[in-house]
Amino acid sequence: MKNKKPTIAIDMDGVLADIETQFIDWYHRDYGILISREDMLGKPEPEAFPDKDAVWRFVNTPGFFRTLPVMPNAVAVVKELMNDFDIYIVTAAMEFPLSLFEKYEWLQEHFPFISWKNIVMCGDKSVINTDYLIDDHCKNLDFCKGRAIMFSAAHNSNIDRHERVNTWDEVRALFNEVRNLTEHVV
Amino acid sequence: MKNKKPTIAIDMDGVLADIETQFIDWYHRDYGILISREDMLGKPEPEAFPDKDAVWRFVNTPGFFRTLPVMPNAVAVVKELMNDFDIYIVTAAMEFPLSLFEKYEWLQEHFPFISWKNIVMCGDKSVINTDYLIDDHCKNLDFCKGRAIMFSAAHNSNIDRHERVNTWDEVRALFNEVRNLTEHVV
Repeated sequence: MKNKKPTIAIDMDGVLADIETQFIDWYHRDYGILISREDMLGKPEPEAFPDKDAVWRFVNTPGFFRTLPVMPNAVAVVKELMNDFDIYIVTAAMEFPLSLFEKYEWLQEHFPFISWKNIVMCGDKSVINTDYLIDDHCKNLDFCKGRAIMFSAAHNSNIDRHERVNTWDEVRALFNEVRNLTEHVV
Repeated sequence: MKNKKPTIAIDMDGVLADIETQFIDWYHRDYGILISREDMLGKPEPEAFPDKDAVWRFVNTPGFFRTLPVMPNAVAVVKELMNDFDIYIVTAAMEFPLSLFEKYEWLQEHFPFISWKNIVMCGDKSVINTDYLIDDHCKNLDFCKGRAIMFSAAHNSNIDRHERVNTWDEVRALFNEVRNLTEHVV
């Protein structure tokens, strides 16, 4: 059996997919009000917009998840990481069952190099066991069995109980360090 | 924090859902040939039918997964187990992405008492970490981190490297034993 690579679970919304930009754009389109990222800092996403029902309505609108923008540099960094890590995309899609196929299609479009074998659509992530988890939500990171890495989002800006990365370039840098340490050990 | 219950991952096709009966029924309907369970013993499902492409075509036909019969007694036993265990439905749905929403709807119809939080649709199950896994495929059971329990199916009849249950009544009996042992320990 070949040497098993360490495993990284990567969340979709807020990590691979820029859901904040989509919320801001759709709110602007539908309400004519432009909310800034600064306005959203430290607030749960639904609370960050004057109409508190807007976010719930957006995530239940067909096409919302299918058209999310890709987070800058996510594609390039994930591709690089696959040389040394087994990458699993782990998304809490069950909360929005209409999103299941949209999320699959989105991954096929933007991350076609990720096999269906490495995609996990779930509810609660506490049964997922990988060596690393990159996620923007404490509800996932808190119960993570591996090393929990918080990807910065406006809604998590006040939380300081997890190691934090702000961009995909910082993810690259973090795993370069992990690789260097591992090579020194070997 | 309340005491965490032990976790059981339960597969769908061949465990909760009687996929063999659906293959036999659809083959009979489309080809006029009635294949028996005895004919299927020890063969991978596609090999068990004269037209080797039939199974592949069936699983890619809209409605196939939505209309699978429920395995006898599965509903009652799963409901009972939920008193003492955290139940996760873990299905390799990613291989058939069109099945994602059908599988969700099937669960909503037959197991409405299972929360979306406890449904996992994945490819490779090796990142799933539960105390028990009930599954009909070695590819899942072999890499299971907990206690692996093989649910009998025609295709796995020749395999003897896992603890085996033949029916949901046997699942009930097995977990009654587990409960009795646990109570004695406490």
